[in-house]
Amino acid sequence: MKEDILTKIPDMDYTEEAPVIDANEFDKVIRSRRSVRVYTNDSVPQEVMETALEHATLAPNSSNLQPWRFVWIKSEEAKKKVVEACLNQAAARTASELVVILARTKAWPSVKEKMINVLTKSEAPRGALSYYRKIVPLAYDQGFLNIKGFLKKIAILFIGFKKPVPRGPASYSDMRVWAHKSAALACENMMLSFRAQGFDTCPMEGFDEKRIKAVLGSKIMEGGSEVCMVLSVGKRADNGIYGPQIRMDKEDFISII
Amino acid sequence: MKEDILTKIPDMDYTEEAPVIDANEFDKVIRSRRSVRVYTNDSVPQEVMETALEHATLAPNSSNLQPWRFVWIKSEEAKKKVVEACLNQAAARTASELVVILARTKAWPSVKEKMINVLTKSEAPRGALSYYRKIVPLAYDQGFLNIKGFLKKIAILFIGFKKPVPRGPASYSDMRVWAHKSAALACENMMLSFRAQGFDTCPMEGFDEKRIKAVLGSKIMEGGSEVCMVLSVGKRADNGIYGPQIRMDKEDFISII
Repeated sequence: MKEDILTKIPDMDYTEEAPVIDANEFDKVIRSRRSVRVYTNDSVPQEVMETALEHATLAPNSSNLQPWRFVWIKSEEAKKKVVEACLNQAAARTASELVVILARTKAWPSVKEKMINVLTKSEAPRGALSYYRKIVPLAYDQGFLNIKGFLKKIAILFIGFKKPVPRGPASYSDMRVWAHKSAALACENMMLSFRAQGFDTCPMEGFDEKRIKAVLGSKIMEGGSEVCMVLSVGKRADNGIYGPQIRMDKEDFISII
Repeated sequence: MKEDILTKIPDMDYTEEAPVIDANEFDKVIRSRRSVRVYTNDSVPQEVMETALEHATLAPNSSNLQPWRFVWIKSEEAKKKVVEACLNQAAARTASELVVILARTKAWPSVKEKMINVLTKSEAPRGALSYYRKIVPLAYDQGFLNIKGFLKKIAILFIGFKKPVPRGPASYSDMRVWAHKSAALACENMMLSFRAQGFDTCPMEGFDEKRIKAVLGSKIMEGGSEVCMVLSVGKRADNGIYGPQIRMDKEDFISII
């Protein structure tokens, strides 16, 4: 079933033409994005925030299960608490806006149902519906105490001797990696979007997750949410970047085989 | 020590001015990036590949420890094997180029040493060196059988009653999340870079990791590498996109507090 939608090219009448893009403008976005740790007092316009949040939701993600949530911390009281949870670091303290990005490890069943609803009403390729009905639960449901994941791992081991087979996700650790990976793709969209719109960001991982969860509350945290990162946003101050970007030799990170 | 470099704004004489960018060109990149599953026979020029790989390395990442590696699969023999490991799916089979992105969970000590070397020779802010010398090992070394991580978790629990404290990474699962998160930020840079340059991609997670590791070999896989994703690259065919992009209601994924 999975092989069907993956390997066979569906017979469809749908085309999306790619627009011509000035690649130099994109290059400027990438190269001018730096982690900014001191911001000016300039505020970030509502429409800039909304565009960046929308751009985040347009990121690619695993099986289109969109395991993310973006929480814009607008209230002064909540913001104060999130800054404290970010260890009062300058990048949070001086920021105009803060966005907390969540990775949702257990929200996929409800999104899967929504995908089935949408696909039922659309001219989806043959196999897409059965992908969500049959393959998605098989792939992502690890069962109570990871029992299904464990059994899956054993089955995968034996099938894998004979033919290629996806080796995971088959544990809660795998599901965490899975959700954070898609959430991070969206985070990068957001950072670049702010930069393209003339604003700067700093992605923060040094925070007290327990305290941030308390600020967000159980409703927002539902679906097995973990804090992927806290993003601060604002206009860079003259002293906002702590030195030239440091990258090692390309050979250390790029291989060709 | 950590609070020092994080909370105090260093007294430095360094400024990076942000260029003016045409935000509309960036919006076109984001909106025209779709997962393309059928490619034409057009090849991807060497310089397009090199630019996209460089753009990947410019992504933000955790403590600048760059826990990633990008493997461009150029040889026909290796490519054939990776396509098979990707379950022979159309998105891999019809692609002009394939890049395997690795998340390196245990490579941070060597990059940390390189960072110390670079910082020693530069006018780095006070505290940056001690961050890499003292805080980085404390944060990322989980010890044999996770013993240090376990002890850290207990210490964090008690410290956390009194004041905000980062709750992790404190396990091997956390280190996996940590590495994949930074690698995914780089993946998104790469996908958008190809799009900006007129090419398309499909990020794939449905692959046989064991078989891909065998193709890459132990030298490339060193440093506790896991396959983050396989990216296929090429020119979109007319039937390359399997329908309009599906996103749920914004309210499902964006919260404001």
